[in-house]
Amino acid sequence: MTERRTMTRRALLVGVGAAGGAGAMFAAMGALGLAPDSQPSDYVPPQPSDFSLKGKGAAKVVIIGAGVAGLTCAYELGKAGYDCTVLEAADRVGGRNLTLRGGDRLPEKDGPDQTAGFGEGVYFNAGPGRIAQWMIAMDYCRELGVPLEVFVNNNASAYVYTRGMKAPVRARTARADLYGYIAELLAKASHAGALNRRLTAEDRERLSEFLRRFGDLGPDLSYRGSGRRGFATYPAIGDGVPLDPPASLAEVLSAGTGRAITMDFGFEQAAPMFQPVGGMDAIVTALVRAVGHDRIRTGTPVTGIRNLPDGVEVTHPGGAVRADYCVAALPPHLLARLPHNLGAQVTAALRTPVPVAAGKIGLEYGRRWWETEDRIYGGVTETDLDITHIWYPSYGYHAQSGLLVGYYNTEKEAELYGRLSPAERRSRALTQGKKIHGEKYRAELRSSVSIAWHRQPHIEGGWVRWPSYEGAFTLLQRPAGRVYFAGDWLTHLIAWQAGAMESARKAVTAIHERVLSTS
Amino acid sequence: MTERRTMTRRALLVGVGAAGGAGAMFAAMGALGLAPDSQPSDYVPPQPSDFSLKGKGAAKVVIIGAGVAGLTCAYELGKAGYDCTVLEAADRVGGRNLTLRGGDRLPEKDGPDQTAGFGEGVYFNAGPGRIAQWMIAMDYCRELGVPLEVFVNNNASAYVYTRGMKAPVRARTARADLYGYIAELLAKASHAGALNRRLTAEDRERLSEFLRRFGDLGPDLSYRGSGRRGFATYPAIGDGVPLDPPASLAEVLSAGTGRAITMDFGFEQAAPMFQPVGGMDAIVTALVRAVGHDRIRTGTPVTGIRNLPDGVEVTHPGGAVRADYCVAALPPHLLARLPHNLGAQVTAALRTPVPVAAGKIGLEYGRRWWETEDRIYGGVTETDLDITHIWYPSYGYHAQSGLLVGYYNTEKEAELYGRLSPAERRSRALTQGKKIHGEKYRAELRSSVSIAWHRQPHIEGGWVRWPSYEGAFTLLQRPAGRVYFAGDWLTHLIAWQAGAMESARKAVTAIHERVLSTS
Repeated sequence: MTERRTMTRRALLVGVGAAGGAGAMFAAMGALGLAPDSQPSDYVPPQPSDFSLKGKGAAKVVIIGAGVAGLTCAYELGKAGYDCTVLEAADRVGGRNLTLRGGDRLPEKDGPDQTAGFGEGVYFNAGPGRIAQWMIAMDYCRELGVPLEVFVNNNASAYVYTRGMKAPVRARTARADLYGYIAELLAKASHAGALNRRLTAEDRERLSEFLRRFGDLGPDLSYRGSGRRGFATYPAIGDGVPLDPPASLAEVLSAGTGRAITMDFGFEQAAPMFQPVGGMDAIVTALVRAVGHDRIRTGTPVTGIRNLPDGVEVTHPGGAVRADYCVAALPPHLLARLPHNLGAQVTAALRTPVPVAAGKIGLEYGRRWWETEDRIYGGVTETDLDITHIWYPSYGYHAQSGLLVGYYNTEKEAELYGRLSPAERRSRALTQGKKIHGEKYRAELRSSVSIAWHRQPHIEGGWVRWPSYEGAFTLLQRPAGRVYFAGDWLTHLIAWQAGAMESARKAVTAIHERVLSTS
Repeated sequence: MTERRTMTRRALLVGVGAAGGAGAMFAAMGALGLAPDSQPSDYVPPQPSDFSLKGKGAAKVVIIGAGVAGLTCAYELGKAGYDCTVLEAADRVGGRNLTLRGGDRLPEKDGPDQTAGFGEGVYFNAGPGRIAQWMIAMDYCRELGVPLEVFVNNNASAYVYTRGMKAPVRARTARADLYGYIAELLAKASHAGALNRRLTAEDRERLSEFLRRFGDLGPDLSYRGSGRRGFATYPAIGDGVPLDPPASLAEVLSAGTGRAITMDFGFEQAAPMFQPVGGMDAIVTALVRAVGHDRIRTGTPVTGIRNLPDGVEVTHPGGAVRADYCVAALPPHLLARLPHNLGAQVTAALRTPVPVAAGKIGLEYGRRWWETEDRIYGGVTETDLDITHIWYPSYGYHAQSGLLVGYYNTEKEAELYGRLSPAERRSRALTQGKKIHGEKYRAELRSSVSIAWHRQPHIEGGWVRWPSYEGAFTLLQRPAGRVYFAGDWLTHLIAWQAGAMESARKAVTAIHERVLSTS
């Protein structure tokens, strides 16, 4: 999809270049925003990561599934000299790593196809959207030369909205009030002697100093609001017009903004996070380029897997692939349905993890009112509505148009939206978002596409949930004969690309060790 | 400076294009990372902001100082039809908005010149480095078509280092421990009845729910650490290897990490913040292009300002400029020294704000070890050392080389560093940074440049501090005859470009109203 869009632009430029020479071409590039002097290079040269298989192997490996796990297996095995074939049931690669652009068609199981109507430069990461710094997805971007930019996961200017509220509040306001009040409560409790048994006088003094700073308390240890909440008019020549004073402690507690305020406290969500420039599928595109298009057969659903005495055989409607080893890198609930001779224990294990529903909608607007009117540049508005979040785009700041993620929900909420038609999903998402952003949210919509991952052909789930990490999880870490399993579902990084990559590294390492030890 | 660097690259490409045609040129661009298919466009078309002067004026205005305030005045007046001349004492424009690149010369008052030895693609924002979302600097970037990207102001993976520590801790660890312990203290105090007089049972239940979430407390309301602190080995196939358990509450309090943890709580520093792609001086470059190079005379120090009965006269070594109005957009402490006939009260007022020292050092490394080894992508390490901060670059992620800001200090610390030679500053900064990053911090340094803003010719200060916002501040908001004053120093946004822009808008609005009312 990147390919097509780029080719159009590139064809135009090559045409201009041929007709008018380099000068005309640079002028055209300037108009398209591509000229060297209109933007500095953020070219990232490929650099090796810490991982590589040592020594060369010569075996043949068939990989089922061209998602991130399968492609990573093919990539790493290919580097080590293996002859890999990847069979992919869908007519596209990438699995849940899916970026939709204008003209892209999105099928749905038992539902209508949608076609993205987005304009130039607008994309929708329908699957994964962000990468944490410590994840090996960062390493693969480095190694494959995929340029990165910040994904804004926490924006003080974004809103928090819970059902009891008359109007949304800015995250910075909700945070300042909650922190202010808990600092006041603790500082006053300490002052009243409630901590004397636990803390020395010196510790209490340090605690008090921290709490004053943490809550922006007055000299009397009271919280009365401060500039941290934001302003009705921000300081400029004058010192700013404050917001209305904070609600009472009881009101702040009952507003229920705590979940939103702590959203990025976890190790998976802590800021900053990152995204590939131009769309998450840049990772897929780079992997496919490195693996070689000719090694990947799309539109090839596997119909059976058999361990043979000296290899494996994987069948598909067009025939069969024989190989020395197989990596099954497809969702466990789909793998469990395939005819195979891996044993009943494997089938039972594959049926253990429970698929989880997940859904997203991309809402395209012809102007970026969230930037010009709300002064929100990237980030997430947290709600307790069934849309859960609204994501503002972390790219194309100040461009003419842009795309919000109007919901990103899971489990019950995702099932609810998934049962609706695309038009009904849009209507419901707009009704909810309007509570936060007003009528423009509905009136100015240009186009939308929604995905219900549990209704995606050949995927049928956002991810899986293990009832326990014992038993089945452990069993599937080991091969069944010559068949290895790989995917985020076999890690503690479920729903993250890094999980798929970690699992792929484990599988290819095990195959390689076996090959080296038996050859 | 952008110009020169771009021309080299561009000249190469034009050469390739001429010799080999468009195909060869695209291949070369791919190698340089400039080809359309190696990075999507982040071209930002100019769009008008909310501000413009209504109606046309025809007066002549002389502006003293080509910093952000002066250039904004010239830009806005130019749009409204005024004939502007900008006189700049230095041989460059931009004032404190200064981006240094390889080959750039940095003079210093009573000190040696430095020349930046940075390689291709490396730059150092020696002055302002970040923009908050609500600031009008964002509007000017939109209006002038300056592309923006995120400046990472808060990174959970960056370090906190205070003098008592054996080793630095990650910000996420320091935050988790502080939040965990204060949540525990308050939850237990509440449980013990200490809040019964202030809160209802229902409020206490809500508070308890928030505190469990805020501190990641156990069922017994105790904090024992959690994944929020980070890991020795992050989860992958397994569930991760935890860090050593948290220090005691007393130790956490005495470590003094509270200042670092609350650094971005203020309205000026809250994440996300932004920077122009390619260097902060993109704003200056865009303003100069819009104003017209021919209207700006660099190397033209003003030697006197005189109100005349029907205009103003501004003298310089090469002659004098007569105009209807003047905007004095230079630092107040320098303006106070100029001969003028604006009156003793104005001179006294100009002497009221106190210049504040500020310093920064740019440290260039040949590899981005903070990304590959420390997994820190952008952000700031906070210390209580005299370097105060270490900034990691928020651009060029995964590039071959990169530049850290090794100190950004003010007041006494900046004066201390300012008194040293460039080599001594570097040596001292490396000795301090080594406490956090180890020997590579010193051993792998490639080049450095340091600035002491209080020793910069024609500037002589990082910014100013007003003893009070009464009296002199108010007086200088009004013109002295036909001479208007503008600069961040005349706002409550001191040390921010947005302050300079706000003040410029105020000055040009006042001039325009006067012109329209008297013509």
